[in-house]
Amino acid sequence: MADEALFQFLHSEIIQYVNSAETGESENGRCVSKLENMGFRVGQGLIERFTKDTPRFKDELDVMKFICKDFWTSVFKKQIDNLRTNHQGIYVLQDNKFRLLTQLSAGKQYLEHAPKFLAFTCGLVRGALSNLGVKSIVTAEVSVMPACKFQVMIQKM
Amino acid sequence: MADEALFQFLHSEIIQYVNSAETGESENGRCVSKLENMGFRVGQGLIERFTKDTPRFKDELDVMKFICKDFWTSVFKKQIDNLRTNHQGIYVLQDNKFRLLTQLSAGKQYLEHAPKFLAFTCGLVRGALSNLGVKSIVTAEVSVMPACKFQVMIQKM
Repeated sequence: MADEALFQFLHSEIIQYVNSAETGESENGRCVSKLENMGFRVGQGLIERFTKDTPRFKDELDVMKFICKDFWTSVFKKQIDNLRTNHQGIYVLQDNKFRLLTQLSAGKQYLEHAPKFLAFTCGLVRGALSNLGVKSIVTAEVSVMPACKFQVMIQKM
Repeated sequence: MADEALFQFLHSEIIQYVNSAETGESENGRCVSKLENMGFRVGQGLIERFTKDTPRFKDELDVMKFICKDFWTSVFKKQIDNLRTNHQGIYVLQDNKFRLLTQLSAGKQYLEHAPKFLAFTCGLVRGALSNLGVKSIVTAEVSVMPACKFQVMIQKM
């Protein structure tokens, strides 16, 4: 619990800081992209540690399952609730109670702030996949807080 | 271990980001002060959770012992190795293997970067103490990595 709080508080501080540091026309976009980049590098580092003693993955789906179970549990203390795929390179990961959104009030007026709270995690997933040899684009959407969906589009080489 | 890595990686990313975002004459000082401020707010939040079920502290020394044992263990997975005081409001907390410095190479040429890696933690201690009713100034110094000393100067009201 202690560590969990540490990460959550630190994550909030970063959002606030990046948000205030990025000024200018496209500030919101830049803020999100900075956070995504931080997540990417953290994801790269984490996945190396997490998979140190893991057997080689069979295929892409096997990798995605690892992200949904082991990786998500290590970082967010719960598994992804639902994983869906169209078997053509698109995966949708649904978390019904996403840890980094539970601090936000569920009021609709806060929905516009949600992207900032998801950007780091989008990067985290992209970074983790990238170091497992899977190039992807990761986006997120929230309809009702604190549930959210991450969409992973695999970029074929 | 997972959480530990998460915090460490995120902490490194913040340092790098703040360092690149703060440009101008007094950039290094501003970078350190931004990191210290983030630590302060995180420390405030953490100590509230950690002391939720703790009995009231007897005195200042009792508070400092809590920081050195419980607080340090929660955040850094080890206790402070040595606590000294002059009984006049100055406390020196020595950590012989400080977790946020163990990633840095021990070479002397990296000593100049050490302040950036300690600023967040200085704030963390100051924030924790502040919410326990103890106003302080916290500074840090490194002579041989990864050992370091945090000096807490209590500000009497």
